[in-house]
Amino acid sequence: MLVNGVPGNTISIRDRGLLYGDGVFRTMRAAQGKALHWPLHFLKLQHDCTALGISCPGEVLLRAELDRVLAQHPDGVVKLIVTRGEGARGYTPSTAATPTRIWDFSPLPDYPAEWPTQGIKAQVCSLRLAAQPRLAGVKHLNRLENVLAAAELSAAQRHDGQLAEGLLLDAEGHLIEGTRSNLFLVLQGKLVTPDLSRCGTAGMQRGRVMAWASQHGVTLQLRDVALEEALHADELFIVNSIIELWPVRELGQRSWGHFPVAARIRHDLDRMDA
Amino acid sequence: MLVNGVPGNTISIRDRGLLYGDGVFRTMRAAQGKALHWPLHFLKLQHDCTALGISCPGEVLLRAELDRVLAQHPDGVVKLIVTRGEGARGYTPSTAATPTRIWDFSPLPDYPAEWPTQGIKAQVCSLRLAAQPRLAGVKHLNRLENVLAAAELSAAQRHDGQLAEGLLLDAEGHLIEGTRSNLFLVLQGKLVTPDLSRCGTAGMQRGRVMAWASQHGVTLQLRDVALEEALHADELFIVNSIIELWPVRELGQRSWGHFPVAARIRHDLDRMDA
Repeated sequence: MLVNGVPGNTISIRDRGLLYGDGVFRTMRAAQGKALHWPLHFLKLQHDCTALGISCPGEVLLRAELDRVLAQHPDGVVKLIVTRGEGARGYTPSTAATPTRIWDFSPLPDYPAEWPTQGIKAQVCSLRLAAQPRLAGVKHLNRLENVLAAAELSAAQRHDGQLAEGLLLDAEGHLIEGTRSNLFLVLQGKLVTPDLSRCGTAGMQRGRVMAWASQHGVTLQLRDVALEEALHADELFIVNSIIELWPVRELGQRSWGHFPVAARIRHDLDRMDA
Repeated sequence: MLVNGVPGNTISIRDRGLLYGDGVFRTMRAAQGKALHWPLHFLKLQHDCTALGISCPGEVLLRAELDRVLAQHPDGVVKLIVTRGEGARGYTPSTAATPTRIWDFSPLPDYPAEWPTQGIKAQVCSLRLAAQPRLAGVKHLNRLENVLAAAELSAAQRHDGQLAEGLLLDAEGHLIEGTRSNLFLVLQGKLVTPDLSRCGTAGMQRGRVMAWASQHGVTLQLRDVALEEALHADELFIVNSIIELWPVRELGQRSWGHFPVAARIRHDLDRMDA
């Protein structure tokens, strides 16, 4: 759609984004010609570029490109990829490389209308996330773990059309995230979300829920979460920029019927500026 | 150079190789119009495609494309990437996707002529490889760990122009591989190479050294290797398809002056058919 500011849908086969997954990305929701929470997406993009030592393109440049995308596609899903660009052969990142900026668009997925209010069914995937502190939290292009987990979920969905998300544990059995979402527990009025310092991807919407907790004086704990603890939580919900927030109504043998805290957060997030 | 059989140097921005690193690759040495050890490269490609559930392109098709590349570039480095191809938005791999075949070429790197015989200087990188048994051994496109390690090595090379390779440990301190090579120890006439069932990339040249050991009645152990053990080995050497074999002459405080076993293997590998 737009590659380095030029309309197009191809990149070089020597781009390090392809060769090594050497880049980061953002998935944003566009509504009425506006990319929701763009300033937060840009902050996260900067953070992730820094984590990989990629020189993040400037906000003015990206904002101008985003506006061109939105002018054509005012509603749906906008994806921005920033790679380290092209380089000489070999893993060593050139400090002189010019990052590649890629914009793409797709329609909003057609999810069942009741999932945000009545909740979804989730299952635990057998794939375990590897611990790599140097990359943890970063939304980079090395996503084979997500692909393997999504394949597993997809196979399970053939037998159970109700399944909407797969939850991922690390090798030690801690609950980390969903295949394409972050995760929160409600425990006696407090919010708990998994520590992502060893693995997992810290999404923008997760940050918004954390900001919500702070603004509303709700205690939020960032720590290791055992699967067992999630199964005994008062509520469980997942978030990302596209779905926003879905409560979990079924996980393994446990089911939930009411999601008052999730409903309140969802309501408030819709009205929050940032 | 050649993308899905057509001359070109671009791929779609929707190719899953870019989006998720959802693909595998081979790096081969071409000499006098021949890709060295192509049958072994193809076997490894098949194996790696299977590991990711990618339908591997047929040998006849790939061989024909390879011949077209070699006709133009008889000597140097040939790279083949096979990705899962394009798909709908999201991590779930479509079973209907047609894999993308990408061929590229680059000249042989200009390494010092004495490294194969007199050995190289190596250092241990601070980056630790994450344990992911589902992806271990596979030469896939999720290579950010190698990129981070190579950046570390490159920074060290600015102070020490003699450094040629960085060695990588896992989180538990086991020695696994080099940033772009596999690793062997010589211990009292036996060969030892790290177990790659939790992390690391099992290269084609590693397989050839294992085959050599088998053919020559030399005991080869595939097991966990402590860094300390490598520092006390009689010899240490690294291998890959491009460098073939380099002995290590310096690692930390340890140095080696003679590499009789490495020299013999190197000599024999040059003459082995497969």
